[in-house]
Amino acid sequence: MTERKTGILRGITVLDFTRAVAGGYCTRLLCDMGASVIKIEPPPIGDGIRLLPPFGGESWAMPPSMSPTFVHCNAGKKSLCMDLKRPEAIDLVKRLVPSVDVVVENYTRHVMPSFGLAYDDLRRLREDLVMCSISGFGMEGPLADRPAADAVGQAMGGMLSLCGEEHGYPYMAGNGIADSVTATTAALGIVAALFERLRTGTGQHIDISMMDTVFAVDCAAAPSYVASRGAYSVPRGGRFHHLACPWGVFKGPQDKYLVIMAPHDIPWERLARVMARPELIDDPEFASMDARQRNREKVHAIIEEFLQTFPTAEAAYKTLSDAKIIAGVVLDPWEVANHPQMASRNMIHSIPYPLADPVPTISTAVHFSKSPLTVGRAPFVGEHNRTVLRDFLGLSEDELDRLHENGALYQDDVVPHLAAHTP
Amino acid sequence: MTERKTGILRGITVLDFTRAVAGGYCTRLLCDMGASVIKIEPPPIGDGIRLLPPFGGESWAMPPSMSPTFVHCNAGKKSLCMDLKRPEAIDLVKRLVPSVDVVVENYTRHVMPSFGLAYDDLRRLREDLVMCSISGFGMEGPLADRPAADAVGQAMGGMLSLCGEEHGYPYMAGNGIADSVTATTAALGIVAALFERLRTGTGQHIDISMMDTVFAVDCAAAPSYVASRGAYSVPRGGRFHHLACPWGVFKGPQDKYLVIMAPHDIPWERLARVMARPELIDDPEFASMDARQRNREKVHAIIEEFLQTFPTAEAAYKTLSDAKIIAGVVLDPWEVANHPQMASRNMIHSIPYPLADPVPTISTAVHFSKSPLTVGRAPFVGEHNRTVLRDFLGLSEDELDRLHENGALYQDDVVPHLAAHTP
Repeated sequence: MTERKTGILRGITVLDFTRAVAGGYCTRLLCDMGASVIKIEPPPIGDGIRLLPPFGGESWAMPPSMSPTFVHCNAGKKSLCMDLKRPEAIDLVKRLVPSVDVVVENYTRHVMPSFGLAYDDLRRLREDLVMCSISGFGMEGPLADRPAADAVGQAMGGMLSLCGEEHGYPYMAGNGIADSVTATTAALGIVAALFERLRTGTGQHIDISMMDTVFAVDCAAAPSYVASRGAYSVPRGGRFHHLACPWGVFKGPQDKYLVIMAPHDIPWERLARVMARPELIDDPEFASMDARQRNREKVHAIIEEFLQTFPTAEAAYKTLSDAKIIAGVVLDPWEVANHPQMASRNMIHSIPYPLADPVPTISTAVHFSKSPLTVGRAPFVGEHNRTVLRDFLGLSEDELDRLHENGALYQDDVVPHLAAHTP
Repeated sequence: MTERKTGILRGITVLDFTRAVAGGYCTRLLCDMGASVIKIEPPPIGDGIRLLPPFGGESWAMPPSMSPTFVHCNAGKKSLCMDLKRPEAIDLVKRLVPSVDVVVENYTRHVMPSFGLAYDDLRRLREDLVMCSISGFGMEGPLADRPAADAVGQAMGGMLSLCGEEHGYPYMAGNGIADSVTATTAALGIVAALFERLRTGTGQHIDISMMDTVFAVDCAAAPSYVASRGAYSVPRGGRFHHLACPWGVFKGPQDKYLVIMAPHDIPWERLARVMARPELIDDPEFASMDARQRNREKVHAIIEEFLQTFPTAEAAYKTLSDAKIIAGVVLDPWEVANHPQMASRNMIHSIPYPLADPVPTISTAVHFSKSPLTVGRAPFVGEHNRTVLRDFLGLSEDELDRLHENGALYQDDVVPHLAAHTP
């Protein structure tokens, strides 16, 4: 391979059959840590997530044809676009497997076997292979064959039921978190399996389910419901914590919102002093968390009245947090991106693109002191067909031309022009 | 150490200074994968999360004094309860460090240095140490000294702004996901650093911020806002996707809700046929995603009317998903726990406790084919003071007694009685 990457996973090659986010973001994490990720895409569109809106306009820092979600989930990968319904393509995959360390896929459980690419098939080609299958429900059980996506993971994992109006509709979290927490859990499993392989030489299959993951990462409601044998439940919430007060979302100045978490007596006393209302500390209506819970409407009104005395939400946040009260401003993603904290953390990288301006790309959030991440460019469809198959399998230009002509391989029309325009 | 664990991280010892969830759940993940985790707790309460309600009642499968969140985040760990304000305790920590592989902490950045336990102090004691610091905002930048917790991470990472009423309050996700996705990301960094250490012998410091993590795992809104240079934004939502229809939460029979994601033409055609409304396929009001978007109220009404024809939400789900439509039932965590899928996945383990009935404990969601996880019991305060300090440092009973007497060590009154009652 001509590619020379740094990072912890340098030298590790991942053959990536994933699409969309739960799979795609998993291998993006591996890519930022140094793995060489070869993304298998179907012709002619490639990963369907390439079609996910929104798309760029004139003022955008992204080519008009590129989906920001695609870029986020695929930065740094190589695209190998092949038609897995053709035997020549399956043959190429099988010839690649001995050279790869990790295979990741997120089909339902019968798809990889239908291609002849089940774990048991692949480990015959590479005995110490690490393979990870990511799906809605996992490899067994009554739901194993059912399709899923982020909202289904939030729903069937128990998370969606907990957010929204108490007597109204439950609400989805705004950021596709079932997908991305599943992706992160899968990446954890893969790196752990690579650690095991390095110690013992043994590969294995990892089975990650979105339903399992969403259920397991709920450290509050899920273990409480289970421990109570169903006797305990919380009303659907979202604005406030139901067992602690004050803890929740409050309206601040200029129609901005803040979160404040000061439920115990010591932070509540701090808050009373910051609000210049020390008499609240001994007031029987507010002197204990139980009392505050009983009088939560009053507590909330007092806090919101106080917040309106500030010119900005940032000013209120500074005062609260200087007083060691746990608080924050509700920022939208553009405000986050422009917050000086994100610049200090180097969280947005400007990535050069051929035929386009550089694209601002959000980094993975792991900061290693000695093994910096690399954030790369998302590929065009089939951009790396030739380099991958030449470098790994020694295919000649004639063989590559024939595979493109007969439809086993496919590349975007722009691909032949990229080299001349690569910055 | 007398403990003999299996799993991928067998033989890896973690000295765990974390409290609450973002730190506690990180080391729980390592513990399930086989690490031996020694949790440092302050006297006399231990980790403050031990006080997080709800607490057990008579019908509960958990001792009345135990917090389900504490159990979930600390299953399998050992408790070493010491007063870090006393020099004897700091001395014990420094004597332990040469024997440990990983240190994890989630204080703000000046706390570990104030104990003389900064990364630069500790690596002098163990050069290849892997240390991970988990905090609200990371080790540098204008917010680095500010306190945080789950809701602050959701707020300042951009997630909270996206969920809730379009013109009303934003809502927190129901399951503390900022904490747990940060914990999972930290565990990924730690295992990756252990992989690097195994390859090169080099340790390092990992710096994980909740704000970074929540921002980075948003694979849709965050990259879109950034790519558009702020020109693009979505209204706060939750019940429906704003760019695709139908995609969202629908009321089903018996006051249960379902999610359905059928925005593209092919799944919409499937849905129309399943609803026995094939005429919708060519109806100009619904024939394209744009048309459905314009007429979304009508689309939603048609779907909800159809769902009411089923006796149960499960029956509607089965019909939809048999027709390859991506759908799910909104389950609460108790319904998840009792779903046959979770039994097939072995996601809830019954863990024996001394002086109490077994406690049902939710497993970590990574299923390795060759390296099964182990789910253990959460410790009592200071339960392992004696075994840890005897096994690692060879302290005599006299020395241990003296350290307990002078307050450097502390243990719960129940601890001396545990051995006789361990199942």
